[in-house]
Amino acid sequence: MQKRFTMTEGNVITCRAAVLWEVGGPFVIENIEIQPPQKNEVRVKIVATGICHSDESVLKGLVGKVKFPLIGGHEGSGIVESVGTDVTAFEKGDHVIPLFLPQCRDCRVCKRPGANICSKFLEIVRRGGEGPSPFSCRGQRLTGGFSTFSEYCVVDQLQLCKINPKAALDKVCLMGCAIPTGYGAAINTAKVQSGSTCAVWGLGALGLAAIMGCKIAGASRIIAIDINANKFSVAKELGATEFINPTEVPDLTAHLLKITGGGVDYTFEAVGAVATMQQAFESTAIGYGVCVIIGVLPHGVPLPILPYNFQMGRTIKGTMFGDFKSQDDVPKLVDEYLDGKIIIDKFITHTLPLEKINEGFELLRQGKSIRTVLTFTST
Amino acid sequence: MQKRFTMTEGNVITCRAAVLWEVGGPFVIENIEIQPPQKNEVRVKIVATGICHSDESVLKGLVGKVKFPLIGGHEGSGIVESVGTDVTAFEKGDHVIPLFLPQCRDCRVCKRPGANICSKFLEIVRRGGEGPSPFSCRGQRLTGGFSTFSEYCVVDQLQLCKINPKAALDKVCLMGCAIPTGYGAAINTAKVQSGSTCAVWGLGALGLAAIMGCKIAGASRIIAIDINANKFSVAKELGATEFINPTEVPDLTAHLLKITGGGVDYTFEAVGAVATMQQAFESTAIGYGVCVIIGVLPHGVPLPILPYNFQMGRTIKGTMFGDFKSQDDVPKLVDEYLDGKIIIDKFITHTLPLEKINEGFELLRQGKSIRTVLTFTST
Repeated sequence: MQKRFTMTEGNVITCRAAVLWEVGGPFVIENIEIQPPQKNEVRVKIVATGICHSDESVLKGLVGKVKFPLIGGHEGSGIVESVGTDVTAFEKGDHVIPLFLPQCRDCRVCKRPGANICSKFLEIVRRGGEGPSPFSCRGQRLTGGFSTFSEYCVVDQLQLCKINPKAALDKVCLMGCAIPTGYGAAINTAKVQSGSTCAVWGLGALGLAAIMGCKIAGASRIIAIDINANKFSVAKELGATEFINPTEVPDLTAHLLKITGGGVDYTFEAVGAVATMQQAFESTAIGYGVCVIIGVLPHGVPLPILPYNFQMGRTIKGTMFGDFKSQDDVPKLVDEYLDGKIIIDKFITHTLPLEKINEGFELLRQGKSIRTVLTFTST
Repeated sequence: MQKRFTMTEGNVITCRAAVLWEVGGPFVIENIEIQPPQKNEVRVKIVATGICHSDESVLKGLVGKVKFPLIGGHEGSGIVESVGTDVTAFEKGDHVIPLFLPQCRDCRVCKRPGANICSKFLEIVRRGGEGPSPFSCRGQRLTGGFSTFSEYCVVDQLQLCKINPKAALDKVCLMGCAIPTGYGAAINTAKVQSGSTCAVWGLGALGLAAIMGCKIAGASRIIAIDINANKFSVAKELGATEFINPTEVPDLTAHLLKITGGGVDYTFEAVGAVATMQQAFESTAIGYGVCVIIGVLPHGVPLPILPYNFQMGRTIKGTMFGDFKSQDDVPKLVDEYLDGKIIIDKFITHTLPLEKINEGFELLRQGKSIRTVLTFTST
């Protein structure tokens, strides 16, 4: 493998990637060209990548302005293939996780303890895929760079972290999104206290990671809510103590207020729907309840809430990457995984080669998977 | 005065009160009868009472279910006239402030540090004025009890606190609502940090008290926002450093994001309107901004917000009585007033006798007053 690095360094690489040519997909496996890393950039050979609901939103064109054709994917792990100029913290062979959220350490958010939405991230979002791209296919520019649905990608050095090489890359790729986001929503955003009662809407990877966070934080009651009762067993393994299928309860909010004697201490919405966001907010305890919105509504869709709930002492907030500082914290989270504190393996229900990416998305749409990990085996 | 207590104790008192016979008012000064305090109750001779926007909402019938005719008012101060059985913490002659928010010390909210919406309060709200009342007028029951627009009122001992008798009762009546609510919104609810930037929408008593709280917490920039520029001078005296008349700015949210280089650390909405709540939320700093809703919308009116703001790390919360524990904290706040830390006097722009209550409400409607204090002089 070392030999291959030597052969590719400084050259354009031709490799496989899953290209979205148009809104709605499907993904098409193509041979694409990827440029060498420029100043401050690192080229990474991706080893594994998870399929996240946000990737489905990109496919559907629901995520603000994103220029097609593109290469998506944002939950990967890999090995540094080569570095551009002015890159000192990484060298080839490093095991790394690309970070959709950069950490520049210089903006007012990075300088603030507990805050993580680096101002560089907003610049990336504003660009929406405009500007130079290292990717092309049959002479056509492809939006991307930080794109883990490709055998290689190119990322800014602020969007990458080095991790313990003992960690299995086909597991810790989930540290690129799902695990930190849900886990951090519980321990950082909500700051779940020991002995508290929590409820989680939506038992996908984010909701399950929130359940794991609630348990690690010492919550004594963790109520798992999903219309798909098949998810309850893994929720239980991760710490859930009670299970509700909302189709079996006429008024879920009233039910939760009743069984908790006045409301849930901390609620987590990991569905991404107006009704569940309202339920999660209005089910919190009067006087001190906190609702954390993890799910995402389509761009521009408003959430109507009753401000009466604010007078009642309820708080509603959100989370980006679980309020973890990306470069600082992901390596620590990987160590916590190696120490057995954080669970990843139970989240991975399917492992498929990149070529079966459309099958992986179908599993997600049908609610049959928690996380499908795509691997890049035939190199 | 002591003699009068002796004469009234255990007997029905006939006294003056401002009665709302129907939605919309006006207040009618009537001679009413008030029963002696029952078990756990205290009868208080009211010395002074502020006129609050919430009283106007009660008058307009905008506050959930409230049974007319009624006697309103909730921001008073007075002297204990007599106590019912099982009352041990109060005795006649004590200087007291009635507390619309009880503190039972026994419910799960009272037992939680930093939370204050005692479960007994919810019972009171649910009753909506149904049940026994100590008040009657010409043989007709009047809703009330905890009613400071009356020369005497009767309150549960959980809804009362004893204060330092050195404090002027015609000033510290504002400790019954406005001062703790706005001040606590800054220091307790938002937890304003030293050196931060704050913005306050609405320069009524609550907004001004929030400004005072921001200043005491050490905020370095305090932006005061009101369409009535006449309020800017008192806002400045209380700590505001910048002033914006939103009618002079095409896009207030964009303007605030610009002049703060990315958003305000802490915003406070003390207007009670959808547009200003949205502005206050969306003007907060990406990554960590906190918006505190102090204002109240009419019952049932929803606030549409964009959940995108949650992903951007913005928090929206509310406050009830500034998150102060009523019985524990109001006596301390009165002491802080006596020590010169908390300002009250600048909030009181008008002092009128009870008989001029309708004039006091007219001053409020026209934006000419900050707080009008009604006094009970002709006893």
